[in-house]
Amino acid sequence: MLPFRSNIAAMAGYVPGYQPPDVASWIKLNTNENPYPPSPEVVKAILAELDGDGALLRTYPIASSQTLRETVGELYGFDPSWVIMANGSDEVLNNLIRAFAGEGEEIGYIHPSYSYYATLAEIQGASVRTFGLTDDFRIADFPDRYEGKLFFLTTPNSPLGFAFPLSYIEELATRCAGVLVVDEAYADFADGNALELVKKHENVVVTRTLSKSYSLAGMRLGFAIGRPEVIAALDKIRDHYNLDRIAQAACVASMRDQAYFGECTRKICETRDWFSAEIRTLGYGVIPSYGNFVFASPPDRNGKRVYDGLYARKILVRHFSDPLLAHGMRITIGTREEMEKTLAALKEIG
Amino acid sequence: MLPFRSNIAAMAGYVPGYQPPDVASWIKLNTNENPYPPSPEVVKAILAELDGDGALLRTYPIASSQTLRETVGELYGFDPSWVIMANGSDEVLNNLIRAFAGEGEEIGYIHPSYSYYATLAEIQGASVRTFGLTDDFRIADFPDRYEGKLFFLTTPNSPLGFAFPLSYIEELATRCAGVLVVDEAYADFADGNALELVKKHENVVVTRTLSKSYSLAGMRLGFAIGRPEVIAALDKIRDHYNLDRIAQAACVASMRDQAYFGECTRKICETRDWFSAEIRTLGYGVIPSYGNFVFASPPDRNGKRVYDGLYARKILVRHFSDPLLAHGMRITIGTREEMEKTLAALKEIG
Repeated sequence: MLPFRSNIAAMAGYVPGYQPPDVASWIKLNTNENPYPPSPEVVKAILAELDGDGALLRTYPIASSQTLRETVGELYGFDPSWVIMANGSDEVLNNLIRAFAGEGEEIGYIHPSYSYYATLAEIQGASVRTFGLTDDFRIADFPDRYEGKLFFLTTPNSPLGFAFPLSYIEELATRCAGVLVVDEAYADFADGNALELVKKHENVVVTRTLSKSYSLAGMRLGFAIGRPEVIAALDKIRDHYNLDRIAQAACVASMRDQAYFGECTRKICETRDWFSAEIRTLGYGVIPSYGNFVFASPPDRNGKRVYDGLYARKILVRHFSDPLLAHGMRITIGTREEMEKTLAALKEIG
Repeated sequence: MLPFRSNIAAMAGYVPGYQPPDVASWIKLNTNENPYPPSPEVVKAILAELDGDGALLRTYPIASSQTLRETVGELYGFDPSWVIMANGSDEVLNNLIRAFAGEGEEIGYIHPSYSYYATLAEIQGASVRTFGLTDDFRIADFPDRYEGKLFFLTTPNSPLGFAFPLSYIEELATRCAGVLVVDEAYADFADGNALELVKKHENVVVTRTLSKSYSLAGMRLGFAIGRPEVIAALDKIRDHYNLDRIAQAACVASMRDQAYFGECTRKICETRDWFSAEIRTLGYGVIPSYGNFVFASPPDRNGKRVYDGLYARKILVRHFSDPLLAHGMRITIGTREEMEKTLAALKEIG
């Protein structure tokens, strides 16, 4: 019998969103992918890194990802020492737990938000406390002083789409004895973010991903912005070569093409707002969304029925069996054409 | 004051081998990179994945890396359920510690070998026990029953280049109460490996990397072969999207081109054996090597002096200040031409 740690033996493991094998024949609106290709600069940068025969791939990448840190720092007004790059923001979420929460120590997050925080805590052997939401999207029963080592705040929230106001996030920062991780995976589709709080409060860390707003889910790129002392700790924990050469090239190229990025996010927000208004006229409840998705519930509050109807038409959205969420569906915003087809399908399904 | 875990606050962090900024002007023999480009199939596969505009990059990769597991399984005669893929073998070494060694629990390894095991244990808060080597390259004072949760055995050993015989590795497996991790980063340059022990002993796991023998250090690819119950535990711990689309494409393409792989490793071994013989005639001590490097010591046993002489000639090798290693240098095997220049430099330096 092998001596597995008991927390590992006991845990179930995280199951990512379903990917249909015949993906090209679906309208795929279930994993919040961007419907537009990445910036044309990305392919150019990858080709430059390959340089014909791919000979550069025989050598190790730059361990620090320094150019990427500088690019992020310039874009958001931080010194590169405040930035760390990650193989998807999941890596940095994992390493934040490893930096602050030991075995048996507590981390907190909101349910519903990103359940992977719980998986990461289970791997560590840390304990998990979840908090619910009030009807007006505040945290229910959040203590005056939260003593957990980390609190993960997904804002904009997935799957619900709302965003916490900055003043409320700041209040939470002052109430957290440990680190407040503001997971801004969807912030590029919102009209605000919490980056200024990183400068004001030593315990605030903001995480971002290039998966959604930069159309690079296939490349695994994310980052965190925090105090240099936090970044230094995360640097000790991360794999020293966490980002390969191609990923580094793609990251810099995509972030430098802000014109393309702005155009894609603008189109998605426009389509989201149009789609939200349209389905409201069908009687759907739609939470005003600040992400690249909407959480929508049909008039009969039977999310599974509509999910099945869409599935039969090869439109894949996300339905959660959780009783808090089963009345609705999370629908990623695709192209205008995809959302017109989805709207027509919803009308058919009734 | 932020509540860092004490082990993280106390640790120094791993420093990877030096990468000169003006790398093209050096003969770079310090990090065991392969001097040959990756298989031409790698670039073809990456271009196919980019498919013109890179649109596929907007979607998540296959989380399981199933095709890669099948490719590895076919090559080595294992069912894919015995294989896990990693973002460099460092990732799977990290996750092995997370699977088996909790805070305060012990892992063991040989010094000198790969000191990153100690860093990974420090991150976890596990304790570390190192073992020395006897003059005939066996482990000094290895207990009849080693009770540590994991023992990491680097074979062929880096930086020394020797390999443990299979019968000895098997004996160690029976003496380990926990898991014996056979780190075969360099096995493709040796004349044997420990894969058959994975089938015979439930506590043996073999790790491999594509960084050296497949010329893909720049892509971060590795894997482990172990019992399905070990692989299942590692699957719970790894990031669910640990390998991006491009890395997956490169991995499959390179491993399927065994003809190219065989030709490159053959040339490196041939150059290694020629170079070893040549520097022995200069009076150097050279440990017979089963890796893509040699550990060589000059007649005066002053490794630093020769390192400096090579450095002045823009030839970068690896010198370790550790008293066990300071008498020599680890010299990566480059192309025949690079090694001829290195030989000429050594003659000049005297």
